[in-house]
Formats: sequence, C-alpha cells, structure tokens
Amino acid sequence: MADYRAPIEDMRFTLREVAGLEELSRLPGFSEADPDLIDQVLEEAGRLAGEVLAPLNHVGDRTGAIFENGVVRTPQGFSEAYHAYVDAGWNTLPFDPDYGGQGLPWVVAGAVQEMWNSANMAFALCPLLTQGAVELLSAHGSPTQKEVYLPKLISGEWTGTMNLTEPQAGSDVGAVKTRATPNGDHYLIQGQKIYITYGEHDFADNIVHMVLARTPGAPEGTRGISLFLVPKYMVNEDGSPGPKNDLRCVSIEHKLGIHASPTCVMAFGDSGGAIGYLVGEENQGMRQMFTMMNNARLTVGIQGIGVAERAYQQARAFAFDRVQSRDLGDQTGKSVPIVKHPDVRRMLLTMKALTEAARGLAYHTLAGLDRANAVTDERSRQQQLIDVVELLTPVVKGWSTDIGVEVASLGVQIHGGMGFVEETGAAQHYRDVRIAPIYEGTNGIQALDLVNRKVVRHRGFPARSFAASVRQEVETLSKLPGERFAGLRRELTAGAEALEQATDWLCGVWANNPHLAAAGATPYLKLLGTLGGGWALARQTVAAARQLEGANGHTAYLEGKIRTARFYADNILPQASAAAVAATRGAETTLELEDAQF
Amino acid sequence: MADYRAPIEDMRFTLREVAGLEELSRLPGFSEADPDLIDQVLEEAGRLAGEVLAPLNHVGDRTGAIFENGVVRTPQGFSEAYHAYVDAGWNTLPFDPDYGGQGLPWVVAGAVQEMWNSANMAFALCPLLTQGAVELLSAHGSPTQKEVYLPKLISGEWTGTMNLTEPQAGSDVGAVKTRATPNGDHYLIQGQKIYITYGEHDFADNIVHMVLARTPGAPEGTRGISLFLVPKYMVNEDGSPGPKNDLRCVSIEHKLGIHASPTCVMAFGDSGGAIGYLVGEENQGMRQMFTMMNNARLTVGIQGIGVAERAYQQARAFAFDRVQSRDLGDQTGKSVPIVKHPDVRRMLLTMKALTEAARGLAYHTLAGLDRANAVTDERSRQQQLIDVVELLTPVVKGWSTDIGVEVASLGVQIHGGMGFVEETGAAQHYRDVRIAPIYEGTNGIQALDLVNRKVVRHRGFPARSFAASVRQEVETLSKLPGERFAGLRRELTAGAEALEQATDWLCGVWANNPHLAAAGATPYLKLLGTLGGGWALARQTVAAARQLEGANGHTAYLEGKIRTARFYADNILPQASAAAVAATRGAETTLELEDAQF
Repeated sequence: MADYRAPIEDMRFTLREVAGLEELSRLPGFSEADPDLIDQVLEEAGRLAGEVLAPLNHVGDRTGAIFENGVVRTPQGFSEAYHAYVDAGWNTLPFDPDYGGQGLPWVVAGAVQEMWNSANMAFALCPLLTQGAVELLSAHGSPTQKEVYLPKLISGEWTGTMNLTEPQAGSDVGAVKTRATPNGDHYLIQGQKIYITYGEHDFADNIVHMVLARTPGAPEGTRGISLFLVPKYMVNEDGSPGPKNDLRCVSIEHKLGIHASPTCVMAFGDSGGAIGYLVGEENQGMRQMFTMMNNARLTVGIQGIGVAERAYQQARAFAFDRVQSRDLGDQTGKSVPIVKHPDVRRMLLTMKALTEAARGLAYHTLAGLDRANAVTDERSRQQQLIDVVELLTPVVKGWSTDIGVEVASLGVQIHGGMGFVEETGAAQHYRDVRIAPIYEGTNGIQALDLVNRKVVRHRGFPARSFAASVRQEVETLSKLPGERFAGLRRELTAGAEALEQATDWLCGVWANNPHLAAAGATPYLKLLGTLGGGWALARQTVAAARQLEGANGHTAYLEGKIRTARFYADNILPQASAAAVAATRGAETTLELEDAQF
Repeated sequence: MADYRAPIEDMRFTLREVAGLEELSRLPGFSEADPDLIDQVLEEAGRLAGEVLAPLNHVGDRTGAIFENGVVRTPQGFSEAYHAYVDAGWNTLPFDPDYGGQGLPWVVAGAVQEMWNSANMAFALCPLLTQGAVELLSAHGSPTQKEVYLPKLISGEWTGTMNLTEPQAGSDVGAVKTRATPNGDHYLIQGQKIYITYGEHDFADNIVHMVLARTPGAPEGTRGISLFLVPKYMVNEDGSPGPKNDLRCVSIEHKLGIHASPTCVMAFGDSGGAIGYLVGEENQGMRQMFTMMNNARLTVGIQGIGVAERAYQQARAFAFDRVQSRDLGDQTGKSVPIVKHPDVRRMLLTMKALTEAARGLAYHTLAGLDRANAVTDERSRQQQLIDVVELLTPVVKGWSTDIGVEVASLGVQIHGGMGFVEETGAAQHYRDVRIAPIYEGTNGIQALDLVNRKVVRHRGFPARSFAASVRQEVETLSKLPGERFAGLRRELTAGAEALEQATDWLCGVWANNPHLAAAGATPYLKLLGTLGGGWALARQTVAAARQLEGANGHTAYLEGKIRTARFYADNILPQASAAAVAATRGAETTLELEDAQF
C-alpha cells in the first residue's frame, strides 16, 4: 500500500493559474484567503491526509463497517481519525463564520476535500454528507434550527445525512412514500430509506438526518415532497443530546467498495413515528434539495479526482520501483524499472494528464461559485452562475468521476498481476471509485441536466460562451514564442468548433424531439469535459511558459506541466471530435433499435 | 442475479456470416462441422452453461475457493459441475481424435468457450488451462508422454496448469529461477511459482503441471528455459495416479475477482525435488510456450466477450424490468421501464454493439486458425497465418478484454445504486473480468507484439491487407440499395485510411526509434480493434440485408443487426481516427515527459 502525499504544488498552481485565487482573495468576504494563508492550509491538510487518514484506507477496506445488534462499528482507527479531523477544525472550512465556520472559498475547501478523498474516500464521505446538511439548513432552516444544529454540524461534533432514496424511488425522488404527519410543533415520520451513507456510525454524539417525506394530501410527484430534520437523539434545552428518537438502522449493504462507509437501510417510526421538524415550508423539499445539489455534485466530482490522484501516485511508485524486462531493443543489458517501457509511460502519463485536467476544470467551477457568491454586481453574478457554475457542475460531476474510474483501472493495469491481488491496494481504488458515477445523480442524469437545463434552456449561450473562452486561450497560446503549442492550438480549435456545432444541433432538435437530444447527452458531456480539461491545461501552459521565460519558479514542475498539456492535446483531445459525432449523428442511430431487437 | 441464455442466434449468424462455417466444414478434417451439427452442439452447450454453470457463478464469488491445511476446496457445486462437464464430453471438442478429441474447429470451440465464460468465468479457467497443457503436449510431447497424459487431459479426467510466473519473473518470463536437475530418466524440480490458476483443487484425480525451469548451466534469459511436465501424482503402470509428487500449494491469493478460481503459490521440491519430465529438448521452453500462446490468448479474448455478453444480458433484464421516472417530456404519465430513457438505451446498445463486434472479430480470427490448420496449399496457409491469425490474435486478446471491462462497467452503471451493491451480481462481472487485460500477456505486451512482430516485421503488409479487406467490404456495402449504409461506409473508409497511415508511420519510425513506435502501440491496437469490429459488423450487415431482401430469416434479429452496425458506425468507429492520432503524433508527446516530471 503506497503512501499518499498531497500534490500541493499542483494544487497551488491550479488554484492560482486556473481558479485565479489572488483575484478571488480581493473579493468581499475572502480577505482571509490570501495565497500565503492558503498555502499553510494546504500544507496542514496534506499532513492530516497523508499521516492519519491515508494509512487507514486499506484496513478500512479489509475490515469494513460492521453492523451488529443494531449498532454500526466503523473500522479501527476511524473514529479517532474523525475526532482528530474535527478537533483541528477541518470541518468548518467553507462555512458561515456566524455559526463557527471559517468562511474560506469553496475552491479552497475543494482542494482540501480532494486530499481527504485521496487519502480515504470512505472516511471523506461522512463530512461530505454533513456539508449537505449544513447547506440545507443554512439556506432554508428556521432561526432556531440554525441556532441549535448549525454550530454542531459545522464543527463536525455532530454529523448529517441525506435521506432521499427508497426502494421504489432511486433516481426518481418524486416517488418517495415516507409519510410525515403533523403533530403539534413537529411531524411524525414513518417510512424506510435506503442507501443512507453514514446513516448510523460511532463517530459522533448525534446524527442529524435530513429526510424527504410527504405530508397528508400533498400533491403527487416532486411537488409534494417536504424536507424534515430528524435527529437521532432529541436535543435538550442545553443543546446536549437527549432521548433517542424513533429511528434505527436496519442493516448495512455489502458493497463493491468504500467498505468502511456504512450504507444504511434506515427505518423511521417503527414505534409510532420519529419526531421530525419541517425545514422551510411544506412541499418545497425538491427545490430545497437543488440548492444543495450543486455543491454536493462538485464534491463528488472532486472524489473522482481524489481517487485518481491516489491511484496515480500508487502506480507511479510501483512503476519506478518494479524492475522487469530489459529496455526495448536491448537484448543483453539489465532489467529496468517498468516506467522505462513506453507503454507503461503512456498509461502513467494518461493518468497524470486526466487527473490534472479534471482538477483544473473542477477548481475553475468551484471558483465560479465563490465569485457568484461574492460579487455584488448582479450581471457578473448571473454570468458566473449560468456560464460557469451551472454549465460546468454536471460536467465536473460526470466527467471527473468517469475519469476516476478510468484512471483507477489504469492503475490496476500498471500493477499487472499484483493489481488484481487485493493486498497491493490498487484494486481498492477501482472498486471504491465506481460509486462516484452513480450517486448524487447518475452521470446519465448529469448529462441530461447539462443538455436540458444548462444548454438548451439558455439557447446554447453558455456552451458557446465556453467555446469562446477556448478560442481566447488559443489566441493567447499563439502569442507564446515557437511552434511548441501548435498541436494544442489545433486540437482546442477543433474541439471548440465541435462544441459549437453539437450545441447548435442540440438546441435545434430539442423542441421537437427531446429524446434525440437526450440520446446525445452523454457524449456531449464527454465532449465538453474533454475540451474543458484541455482548456484548463492550456491556461496552465500559458502561465508555466511565462514563468519559465522569467526563470521564475520550479522548472521541472513547470516544464512537466507543459509537456503534460502537449500529451493531452494529441492523446486525449482528439476524442472530443469523436464524442461530437456520437452526440449528434450518433444520437439518431441510438434510438433506432427497437425493444425487441435488444 | 439474472439468468444466462446463450446467444445462440447471434453465435450461429456470426459463425456462418463472419467465420464462414459452411466453407470451413468443406475443408479436410472438418466434415463433422456441418452447420446443423454445430447448431446442436451450441444448443447442448447452452443448456449446460445456462442450467448448471451460470447458477453457480454468484455463490462461487461469495464463497470463493478456500485453502485449509494444504487443501483447496472449490465452492459448493463446482466439482459436481465439472464432472457433468467432463461426462458430457465438453472438454474434448477441438482436440485430436487420436487421443479422444472430437476434432471440431477452434471457432466452434471458441463459441462454446464463450458460453462457459459467460456462465462462470472462474469455472471456465480450469479447462482453459488444461487446453494449454494439451496443446503443449500435442506439439512437443514424446510419444510416451502423449500416450500417458493426453487422453486424460483431453477427456478432462485430469486437469492441466501453466507454471510460468515467479515473484521476480512476471511479464519477463526469461527471469525464471526454478531449477531442474537431471536425475536418471527425469529431472528434479525445485522452486516457487506464483499465480498458478487451479494449481490445486478438488475437481480431478490428478493435476498435470507444465513448469518452466532452468537446467544446470543453461544460458541466461529466455534462451535457457526448459519445459517440464510435473504431475501432482506419479502415474502407475496402469495409468492410474500413484504416489504424491514433491510439490504443494502454499497459499492462495485474495483477489479482486474470479474468487472461485484458486490462484496458487506452488512450491516444487521442498523435500528434495519434484519429479519432472522434460518436454521436447532443453532450452526450448520459451519457443514451446509460444506455440500454445496463440490459442490461449484468443481464449482470453473470448473471456472478455463472454463476460461482456453476460453483463449485457443482466443489464438488459434490469433495464426492461426496473420502472423509474416518467418518459422524457411527459409530466403526468406513469413511470416507465428505464430502457425507455435514451441514455440507458445508449448504454445498453453500446454494450450490445461492442460485444457483437468483438465476437465477430474473434470468430474470424479463430476461423483463420482453423483454415491455416486445414488448407494444404502452403501459400494460403501462410496468408491465413500471417494476415489473419498472427495479426489479429493480439487484437482479439487486447481489444476484447478491454471491451469486457468497459461493458461490465456500463452494466454496473445501468443498475445504478444496485450495481454497487454486491447482491445483484453486476459488480461481480466488473471485478471478474478485470484480470483479462492482465494475464496471458498484458494488453500492453499484446500491443507491442502487434506492432513489432505482426506489423513492422512484415513491413506493414498484414495491416494494409486488413485495410484492403475493409475497403472491399465498403465496396460490397455500396451495392446494397438505398443510402442506409452511407455512414458505415464513410466511417469504415476513414478508419481504413487511418490504419494505413498509422501503419506507414510505425514502419517508418521503428528501425531508428523503436521506443516511439512502442509508445503508439496501445492506441494502434485500439485502432485496429475498433476498425476490425466495424468490419465484422459490416459483413454481418451485408448478409442481413441480403437475407431480408429475400425475406429469408428472422426479421427482428436481422434488422436489429443492421441497426446495431449503424449505431457502431456513428458512435464507436469515430474513435478509430482519434486512436490513430494518439498512435502517431501522440506517441511523440508520450515520450517527452522526463522521469522527474511525473
């Protein structure tokens, strides 16, 4: 099992050169986020991730969470690690200072969350869910709810969960059947929820469940869903946990990966009804969920990147260490580390390039969220929201998690037979990350969201505006001396053109034939992700080239960045055009096959 | 856990229209292989696969093989299933009638092996390894060795293993250290082998280990490796198993998948030396292994196809059964089976198209092997061998196993959250098939073999000849009425052109810069596979269109085949051009990054 070292140099460079951290720190509310302080934050987080969380990843997989007599026990060391994480204040990073948060930008929180996920994805899920509860309560909770629950959730003393799914209601949240009956100042909740991440555990004194349910007479479907706060333990006047609420964990799932993270079946109201408090108004549950979903989706995208980075580091260590076969064409010399074999180099560089490209696009999107939150000019705010955050959020979620799977699979491949044996840990990443394209809205749903709500609904403008940014970057690249970036320019231009054409096509067919547009949605998302990753690497290339001109900076890193971008241009970007064909012509042939012909 | 039904209609059509079964059955030695008899073989094999082997797949995964007190126990039901398989004569299919085989074509054996692997990949590995031992002994064994061992191995009464790998000698077989010391009419073998599939088990009365070892004073590297036959039990005069040989299973691996298949660490000669018999001459071990490797590699490719087919069937059953969300644009109607959602349809059709394309290319290659074995004209034989079998064997191995992983992953995705929970079985395919791109020569090694030995060594002619076959098929397609195949023709032509250009480039750079050619090898293999799969579907399209014209045949199946090919043309074939860019320009940027820049 290889160590994990947070890729701080690349994070810092990406934060500055893609996310524009310096400019961000000058916006109102972010004065704390000056780059020097952020460097310290990254260093400290990297230490906890590398020294405490990463060593638990393998044992967490082997032991897994255990359910016995109604109690969930997390693997040895996890609870202690969680307390170390809380005690150091890591849970508070992006939240409202009025309730104990540090008010740092989301993009900084994203970089730190990437570290937790690299180190130990199963562990990192618990704070991810708490973050969702904090956001929901911050946006929609009553003053009392905020006062009672937010400080505990923001500190991490208590944790949060999301209770959406039921057996008949997976992606279709509107099919939820759990009932909420008014009863004085609260409601009584009855029903069963499945796939509840950290629905029960031994990390914290209390668990705050956010539960979707229907009140009597509520409209059918998504318009009749309300959101309730249902604590595991009722809260005493002094804020301490009191009597147990009427809810319990029934069982936990036997899963492909993230074994240390308990995925619970939760029963509410077996003994008459769990006490739940309405959040906001009745029947607003779905809308409320959407306010949270942007961040959660971005964080799941970050999970894909985090596991990709870990798999890359592990494969890199193996490839430099494992000596096998002579160099190509050398019949007599000694065996060499396998990284010397061109195909292993290709795999390793593919892992690196995809991970860094996805990191760039994700940090750019998170920074867009911070800008939208901070700028006062409404027009700039809308532009950041619509052209960056809304457009790219489904892309970051879908594309980065697909990359997570692809990169983890390459990591297994580099290990050869040892990748298939569980003791090396390469296989764990391949298993763990496979959930990321599924939860928080499957990648197919992300693609549909992208096409429908983010592109067609705005008549294609956000996508065209992104293509224009790409062309702008090509223009900037063309001002760098030499012909070194001709390939990158050519492929980016081809990608921008492909994006424009596919966007026109989608906008044209949607009104009369939404099925056709939907059939092209997944390759369209791939097109935008592939191009977006190339754009992010191009921005870094420009910055790296300028810093190298000024002999300003770490040469090996900067030169490596430029070469990584060149590799990406020739090896990854051409897939954008293939995806564009699939998104348009390919959509038509997708719908041809009839049911009986499958 | 979904049922498995052998896809007999598609197998039959592929055997006839791609592999040319009728023409094959007219070649000397294949008179038994008339299409009607083959139909019966497929039906019967499908029954065993569906009724006996498939139901054991899940329990095999859950229980796994167990190692206790030096003994390996396979999961409940496996040994009985193996005996049913042997008793019905399935192990004998492609082997020499002189030793009890049925002498059927390899392409028929391949179709049947696909079924075993769909039904239960972990089970099917045991016969796969026995097949390797049979081939080695058939080609290189002494008359006595053949007489004693071949009938038992061909019947399946005994099983065979391949003992190549040692901890320091994975892909680099030349680094083997196991020693073989002459001792009268035999050798004494001492050493440790790892990753020995079915090295120990409870299926059969004896296990025949084929072991690579070095004799005293043997040359270093691959030129000093000899092959030995080392039985678990010495064989009595009457052919029955006698005293135990000095070898044992030390432990079995804890693996990502194929849990029911014991992967053994084997110790030879702990008590002085295991008795081994030299096969052929000393120092010929590597050459001998190569005679077997072609078939074994094709069979591993078939494993990828088999698991892909199973994953497809399971996802199809789920997609037609699972009701979730309304049809797109329908706000009021009822929820529909998820197969009605365009993106699910795309995933399912991708699974189908890739599986059928890979099946077509694999059967074509296996038929080439049969032709090369049967034709008497040396020039035709060489042509089949060089232009079909040798060229396409690494492609079938590499491309089909990559497809196996991709299709199994799509199967998980279609299941949503249920795909990540182990009880549905979708995740098992994703775990099981991940070994196929690794063993029997990693896919990177396949790609290098393709570029070096199969393309460059023949100055590109086999690849150009394949491109010519593609252009030929385009010509034939153009004679079909209507414009329905314009897309297929266009994409095939673009693919053929890309293949020709990439081939020229590879042949041009190899002599002076083999590293550069090697850096392009994997995308070159992908290019050839993607195009080859398209060619196979185009052949089937022509046949289907003609049969439909004549109102001759099963309309839904034939029309489905045409639409699958059209889907493949727009959605998969465009990747061929992207792969060609990566194989050429992309190879240069692959080698740019220096060690310190990873």
